[in-house]
Amino acid sequence: MALTMTWTKLRHLLTLQKHTWNTIVVASRHCNNTSQPTTIQQVDEEVAKLLDLKAQLGDEPTPKTVLKTPKGTRDYSPKQMAIREGVFKVIVDCFKRHGAETIDTPVFELKETLTGKYGEDSKLIYDLQDQGGELLSLRYDLTVPFARYVAMNKIAKIKRYHIAKVYRRDNPAMTRGRYREFYQCDFDIAGQYDPMIPDAECIKIVYEILDNLKLGNFVIKVNHRLILDGLFEVCGVPKDKFRTVCSSVDKLDKTFWEDVRGEMIDDKGLDPISADKIGEYVQLNGSSELVEKLLKDEQLVQSKAAKEGLEGMKLLIQYCDIFGVKDRVRFDMSLARGLDYYTGVIYEAVLEGAELVKSNSKSKEQIGVGSVAGGGRYDGLVGMFAAKGKKVPCVGVSIGIERLFSIMEAKMERGNQEVRTVETEVLVASAQPNMLEERLRLCKELWDAGIKAEISYKANPKMLDQYQYAEKAVIPFLAVIGEQS
Amino acid sequence: MALTMTWTKLRHLLTLQKHTWNTIVVASRHCNNTSQPTTIQQVDEEVAKLLDLKAQLGDEPTPKTVLKTPKGTRDYSPKQMAIREGVFKVIVDCFKRHGAETIDTPVFELKETLTGKYGEDSKLIYDLQDQGGELLSLRYDLTVPFARYVAMNKIAKIKRYHIAKVYRRDNPAMTRGRYREFYQCDFDIAGQYDPMIPDAECIKIVYEILDNLKLGNFVIKVNHRLILDGLFEVCGVPKDKFRTVCSSVDKLDKTFWEDVRGEMIDDKGLDPISADKIGEYVQLNGSSELVEKLLKDEQLVQSKAAKEGLEGMKLLIQYCDIFGVKDRVRFDMSLARGLDYYTGVIYEAVLEGAELVKSNSKSKEQIGVGSVAGGGRYDGLVGMFAAKGKKVPCVGVSIGIERLFSIMEAKMERGNQEVRTVETEVLVASAQPNMLEERLRLCKELWDAGIKAEISYKANPKMLDQYQYAEKAVIPFLAVIGEQS
Repeated sequence: MALTMTWTKLRHLLTLQKHTWNTIVVASRHCNNTSQPTTIQQVDEEVAKLLDLKAQLGDEPTPKTVLKTPKGTRDYSPKQMAIREGVFKVIVDCFKRHGAETIDTPVFELKETLTGKYGEDSKLIYDLQDQGGELLSLRYDLTVPFARYVAMNKIAKIKRYHIAKVYRRDNPAMTRGRYREFYQCDFDIAGQYDPMIPDAECIKIVYEILDNLKLGNFVIKVNHRLILDGLFEVCGVPKDKFRTVCSSVDKLDKTFWEDVRGEMIDDKGLDPISADKIGEYVQLNGSSELVEKLLKDEQLVQSKAAKEGLEGMKLLIQYCDIFGVKDRVRFDMSLARGLDYYTGVIYEAVLEGAELVKSNSKSKEQIGVGSVAGGGRYDGLVGMFAAKGKKVPCVGVSIGIERLFSIMEAKMERGNQEVRTVETEVLVASAQPNMLEERLRLCKELWDAGIKAEISYKANPKMLDQYQYAEKAVIPFLAVIGEQS
Repeated sequence: MALTMTWTKLRHLLTLQKHTWNTIVVASRHCNNTSQPTTIQQVDEEVAKLLDLKAQLGDEPTPKTVLKTPKGTRDYSPKQMAIREGVFKVIVDCFKRHGAETIDTPVFELKETLTGKYGEDSKLIYDLQDQGGELLSLRYDLTVPFARYVAMNKIAKIKRYHIAKVYRRDNPAMTRGRYREFYQCDFDIAGQYDPMIPDAECIKIVYEILDNLKLGNFVIKVNHRLILDGLFEVCGVPKDKFRTVCSSVDKLDKTFWEDVRGEMIDDKGLDPISADKIGEYVQLNGSSELVEKLLKDEQLVQSKAAKEGLEGMKLLIQYCDIFGVKDRVRFDMSLARGLDYYTGVIYEAVLEGAELVKSNSKSKEQIGVGSVAGGGRYDGLVGMFAAKGKKVPCVGVSIGIERLFSIMEAKMERGNQEVRTVETEVLVASAQPNMLEERLRLCKELWDAGIKAEISYKANPKMLDQYQYAEKAVIPFLAVIGEQS
């Protein structure tokens, strides 16, 4: 009995600091090799020995076995950061060229702020654990926080950009640049203005950014929620199915029509006749000539919504022509975009990289690397937050910068391009020993004069090491200190 | 019975779309004003009327009642962003002047990555909800993610800065610039180097940043974990109480000694004699003369740790002297810093603003606005992540930028300084109607030439409105289009 208690005491002592567990296991094996203690005194002696051993080993915590970033996320190395900053600069310069200011919002919002804004995608929102206090969620995009900001501060008009990370519990496809944590670069114009003028500027901005990044050919697909609504209306879709049919149509860039049709009929209970009628329209795309054709489509223009949407589209394409971007704009009736909050024009820019493959059981077809920018008009979103439901019409675009990074990185690697990650101008070096103080002093003078300078942190570094460091970091000047002979 | 069922049907219809609740309540009051329906047909008619009314009202969602950012967080307005970017520029310029690269890490880490790194502060970590998959936490600082990054990528040396937001479920004190979401600007040097050279550069960096921001007088307090350990040793603190006593000592900047002493004895079970001995030391501060005095303190230098720490402090102050920053550096034996991972030098920079008040039941005393930078040496942290426990010594400093923002903002407001939030160079305007296309065309040409330009988004804006906008946004040029007479 007394012995049992002492073993309990030993176990207690051994588990006092859980993080030394590995150390302890070793010690206990060591203990097994000696003869089993039989008296309280022997046990106490063993305990003393073990604790002594433990003290010698130090209280090093167990090394972690899992050493990774969370699923769907990544670190950026200095080289990647240099590329990223280059891309950011092109984008921010463009936003500033168009007279935008910038704001920032918290990375999480009250959970209720995000509720009911993202349709079927709401399941992808990251929630924070309830640790007492408010229920919070990580932001899913920058648009809803922007609308909340506009409503909260009772802003009537603002043109702002916002570059920040957003979070989606999606299936990551990191080789294609699809992450769970990713940057968005948003440009939005809020305010009551005349039709399609700010909408066209958003397209001009996407054009300028993609053009300046020199990523090859791209197309900016445009459509209009009112055209889709009108289309569903004349095809006999019940009003309560508009949203869900819309999200099926949205899959047409990744799936074949026959599969989308199947989903509409089997999963969403749509009449096959309606589905086939929809099919006739959503496979159309073109430019002003398509708009003109549809404006003469007697069936379609029976819908007031469709007519209004088509008139808008006509004006938009006209402004795009003035902005010199019409050749890149494609009116695509299959473009739907999943988010609930769009009310007017919707956009999506696609690089013609032919890296994704659209497939089903029957056939395969190469398609673009996917969307690199998207957005649209959302006239009702601010009103959802405003005290008296006061609407502030908004239109904006979001640059899908992670895909752009991935493409830029691949391009850099293919081209074997060197990326400088530091800007150091002078390395203060010495070939002689005991020159530390002199090196420190010179470095201080350079820093104080605003010159980017470094020294080796060794007291007596080898000259060769200093040369090699300067070469590797591409430092253009070496200031070498030596005694006069 | 039949009637009951129809009321159920009505209620069902009314609750079908919960977000129209407010609308419905109005409608139901309206219903009460009419005569109570008595037959099924009447009920059906009422239902039809209500649904009709509902359709007229539109399916506007209920305006949110709570319109705020989460507790302890804030939005940045364009003006605040302009100030923030100015502060960031000073800091980044300094980091680059010292030859640092930059990295980025995800906003959340695996929960286990953060476990056991923050001592008593661990309770302030935000956890994400378990939604299947990995258990995640928001980063608490940038140091632990940096150590994880260094270990994961098997980096032997790196000098990097990282500017990003971190998260602490602390009691916010937003007027003093203490938030739950806040930026940290970290500069760290990892690698096996000679003593105190990188440590002194960190102090030089803090000095340069605070000096360049022109925020008034400041002092950089320094201490050494080995000095504290040695001090606790010679004062008879049991080894397993070093950490907890350390965190009591750390409160001395906000609390009086008598309260800290009480906590040590009553809460942490320290012998009053030990506590009093500690009290004699931790109230000392000075510079090299204090180091010299303590090196002659026979009791203290009995501890190997204390002696080693004091020798280090002597060297550090010597290098600070060469860097011309010695006059701002104060060796303060009460500086302890709460985090578990420090192993050597610790720093904390304090502005001498006299805005906080340190108080207890007996007396009040004005103290500084609190820490605006802090850091230290953490030689063991990378080893906690490395596969074979391989150590990479590190030292670094973190700039508490939110407090700097708050101070800068207050300063701007006091000085009534105008902050420009856009960079627009030209406003393309017109005094005549029907000039929209001409304005769009000129704007396009300016943008394509890299000139920052804006137009009014009205088709026929008033000249006065355009003038006023240009004046408000401080746009230097107006390009006015008109027909030749």
